[in-house]
Amino acid sequence: MCLRDLSPASGTAANETGLRGVGVSSGRASGPVVRVAESLEEPGSHPTPPDPRAEAERIRPAAQLVADRLASRATAAEDSARSVLEATAAMAADPALLSRAEKLVTERLLPAERAVYETADEFAGMLAGAGEYLAARARDIQDVRDRIVAALLGVEPPGLPEMTCPGVLVARDLSPADTAGLDPALVLALVTEEGGPTSHTAILARSLGIPAVVAVRDVLAHQAGGITVDGDTGTVELTEHPIRIETAVTTDDHEWDGACHTADGHPVTILANIGSGAEARAAQRSGAPGVGLFRTEFCYLAANEEPDVADQRSAYAEVMSPFAGKPVVVRTLDAGADKPLPFLDAAAEPNPALGVRGLRVAFDRPGIVDRQLEAVAAAAADTGTAVSVMAPMVATAEEASWFAARARAAGIRQAGAMIEIPAAALCAHEILDAVDFVSIGTNDLAQYAFAADRMLGATAGLNDPWQPALLRLVDVLGRAGREHGKPVGVCGEAAADPLLAGVLLGLGATSLSVSTSALPAVGGTLAAHPLAKYREAAQAALPAAGPDQARQRAREMLG
Amino acid sequence: MCLRDLSPASGTAANETGLRGVGVSSGRASGPVVRVAESLEEPGSHPTPPDPRAEAERIRPAAQLVADRLASRATAAEDSARSVLEATAAMAADPALLSRAEKLVTERLLPAERAVYETADEFAGMLAGAGEYLAARARDIQDVRDRIVAALLGVEPPGLPEMTCPGVLVARDLSPADTAGLDPALVLALVTEEGGPTSHTAILARSLGIPAVVAVRDVLAHQAGGITVDGDTGTVELTEHPIRIETAVTTDDHEWDGACHTADGHPVTILANIGSGAEARAAQRSGAPGVGLFRTEFCYLAANEEPDVADQRSAYAEVMSPFAGKPVVVRTLDAGADKPLPFLDAAAEPNPALGVRGLRVAFDRPGIVDRQLEAVAAAAADTGTAVSVMAPMVATAEEASWFAARARAAGIRQAGAMIEIPAAALCAHEILDAVDFVSIGTNDLAQYAFAADRMLGATAGLNDPWQPALLRLVDVLGRAGREHGKPVGVCGEAAADPLLAGVLLGLGATSLSVSTSALPAVGGTLAAHPLAKYREAAQAALPAAGPDQARQRAREMLG
Repeated sequence: MCLRDLSPASGTAANETGLRGVGVSSGRASGPVVRVAESLEEPGSHPTPPDPRAEAERIRPAAQLVADRLASRATAAEDSARSVLEATAAMAADPALLSRAEKLVTERLLPAERAVYETADEFAGMLAGAGEYLAARARDIQDVRDRIVAALLGVEPPGLPEMTCPGVLVARDLSPADTAGLDPALVLALVTEEGGPTSHTAILARSLGIPAVVAVRDVLAHQAGGITVDGDTGTVELTEHPIRIETAVTTDDHEWDGACHTADGHPVTILANIGSGAEARAAQRSGAPGVGLFRTEFCYLAANEEPDVADQRSAYAEVMSPFAGKPVVVRTLDAGADKPLPFLDAAAEPNPALGVRGLRVAFDRPGIVDRQLEAVAAAAADTGTAVSVMAPMVATAEEASWFAARARAAGIRQAGAMIEIPAAALCAHEILDAVDFVSIGTNDLAQYAFAADRMLGATAGLNDPWQPALLRLVDVLGRAGREHGKPVGVCGEAAADPLLAGVLLGLGATSLSVSTSALPAVGGTLAAHPLAKYREAAQAALPAAGPDQARQRAREMLG
Repeated sequence: MCLRDLSPASGTAANETGLRGVGVSSGRASGPVVRVAESLEEPGSHPTPPDPRAEAERIRPAAQLVADRLASRATAAEDSARSVLEATAAMAADPALLSRAEKLVTERLLPAERAVYETADEFAGMLAGAGEYLAARARDIQDVRDRIVAALLGVEPPGLPEMTCPGVLVARDLSPADTAGLDPALVLALVTEEGGPTSHTAILARSLGIPAVVAVRDVLAHQAGGITVDGDTGTVELTEHPIRIETAVTTDDHEWDGACHTADGHPVTILANIGSGAEARAAQRSGAPGVGLFRTEFCYLAANEEPDVADQRSAYAEVMSPFAGKPVVVRTLDAGADKPLPFLDAAAEPNPALGVRGLRVAFDRPGIVDRQLEAVAAAAADTGTAVSVMAPMVATAEEASWFAARARAAGIRQAGAMIEIPAAALCAHEILDAVDFVSIGTNDLAQYAFAADRMLGATAGLNDPWQPALLRLVDVLGRAGREHGKPVGVCGEAAADPLLAGVLLGLGATSLSVSTSALPAVGGTLAAHPLAKYREAAQAALPAAGPDQARQRAREMLG
């Protein structure tokens, strides 16, 4: 609850309630509150079904119904929403989930609802406490769980209500299925009680260009009719009765042809973050001139064992093929106790985010990284992409050298290091001596620099990418990059905020890599000012007293 | 397994095995291997006792036997060893533990050994994953568990064997009870498979002035007879047969009268880290001119509820009374999900070290810190100590101001911030504007700067306090302190290494606070050179490529 409690919103009128959270998407909007229904109550273990076999047989039709509904919503949806819905539909029909639930009915004599609930929770539990990647999957499973339980009970599923007129969505947190089903024409703003600046809700709001405030404690406890949301100050005002609809959103109608340069013609490279073939094709369709972060975990998640080199090669080639002749930066496997994969056999750790994850997994088992590098090199040759590789969770120059030597041995000429550990930023010169480029992962870098879990609502204020201490680490890296004449990219969520993108450019970032949905806004904005102006804005933001002041100063200069 | 696997020990002879860990206490020694016995096997749940009441009645006499033995060892021990043994003896006779175990026998029909084992594990589980403070207590409970189970089985307890001639102890990790029972005259060196630079083993070895290497993977898998330990390089050589005893330990026969100054008369303040009345009295007897870190958790651990102001006042006064007229720096409560206290009602967090801990606990409940500050101010008045207070886990200048305002409102004139979060070091100027002094907690600062859990053997190399990135953060703080004319203390384990203490002084630390056992070595060493020499050594260590090189460079200059 750190920062937000230190400076509560003030100036609240008598019949209004002012709350404060973390603004994660710019703009201001007012309108009626539309609440997202909370999950169903947990089903009980009683009564014991009189005919367990018949009870077990109820499960598959209910699951199929859920899968069918999700699949039909997928058909109606577009682009990235479609792939999320398709994945969720597949999860609802997952044979392992269903047969385990049936077994709980026939062997432990649980009601079908309870059996589905427990099974899904077991599956989700295995993924919980995981980093961004798998934690999101745990949420998906819980979403599917609730839909199947609702189908078994014959009630409407929890989640997003059908909207017929515009409103502001207020929720505990939005699930991927919620966000995928959301009609952008009707959602004026998003407010959640949980979540941080890198949560699903935040990413979605930025991509839709609507105001959003997350980590607003107790917002659900108020029975408000109307709400005013300010995504810049992170404040929310609740009124008893519905209020007039007003919006003052920064318009993001940017033309973007894939190229980008500042107003004085200084070129800026804007690349895409991707993690699958579908995302690669979407990025290519959006005109992305290359990939700045290719997350390779998808290839490992499919199997129980490490995929062999041939399988990896074809999987990577599928993702890389839309970018023939273009740059693709591949991040090697980022897994460990926080993102467990069966073949890594990772021991439970008290703080998985501070444990053996990322490149650290490979120090014991260099074969894992060697086989991956071999597959990446082959896929690059197959597809004609200008490939480079970078390692996650590099802490020291020694680790960076170790990785670069293996990459070069695999025939990959460009080897880099992700900078997401503060110590790595403090050894920027030594690391730039060892590798060809660095790429700053602002999400994790903020988490470690502030000792604040990025998945925790309570510490969301510290994970604000406008925190001056984070900007100062980027500054250290930007200066080191210029001195060494080597590229310094930014591939965290910070780069997806068009205003912050300008500041990062001013701090010395030579490329920005963002999700496909954020490409036009970021790419289109940076042509507004000459490079010197971005540098000036960066110098104004660096010494700010806090994130709000840093954002305010940048806005004053970059408009 | 990070660093140690990147550069394995080389130059090993044919019948020798070279292993590498993390050197945590200086010097070199050879001698026969003395293995510390591993824990007993986990007792099974069968057979069901034929007479559960009689079975339950076996528990108390066995526990009493263990408590008596520990208490008699306590009588024979000295100083800090005595209080550890007394605490462990009390734990063995803990009524809550025993009645819960008896209940498991009578209600779940478990054998007595199994019931004790499960109960102790439940208790330990509540503390596991905790930080330094409570994790050590979890280990104590497991030690007591094994002793009671051994007594029930009628076998010798696991742990330290009785030594009759000199040898090198090789263990998975040493428990507090092991280290308390250890005869310093017979232990040539310590080697452990687990543990990090801030583990119990490391702290003990430094206080005894014997060489030690921790985190030596697989050392227990070798059936060696002899061993050579180099605490400077972190290498261990195993031979099949026992080898001749040799030692080359840096002698630590320092005279120390509590005062300290460099060879050119520049005064250096060496203070004590304490956490109880017994530790305060021991520190005072050792001639400590004050307290640099008074950990207040002991006062909260005793009760299930928050102690009221009167109870806190008398508890603090007891600890402060030996230091009438002298400086005492009180650290306010450092608890949270990683060090849970019942009344905090902390939610489980995926990464407790990155969660709501330290000062963050108070943002929601400022009364906790206000009541503590009131009690501290009153205890200082009662005892006539020159008190100052500092907050743990400060991340931003805003948080530092928030705490300083509350301290001043409580009538405490000196308010400071612990610097143990990298972002706080990066905002050193703003934080020094807000408070009167800072104190660097190197243990946690290293953990966050390297994203490496300090309790994890696998990442021990990154927690080496000689890591150049950590020294660079101290350098940033030392410079900021000089500029602001405000004190910059160091109260982490780094200050307890006499060689590193000199480097910290050279980086701008104005005081060093260490455990009482390390006071004479640190206090006595710093008079060896003029301040300029320490500054030179610091400047030589800062740009080092890694911790070994930093240590080597400092040793070359400071001898």
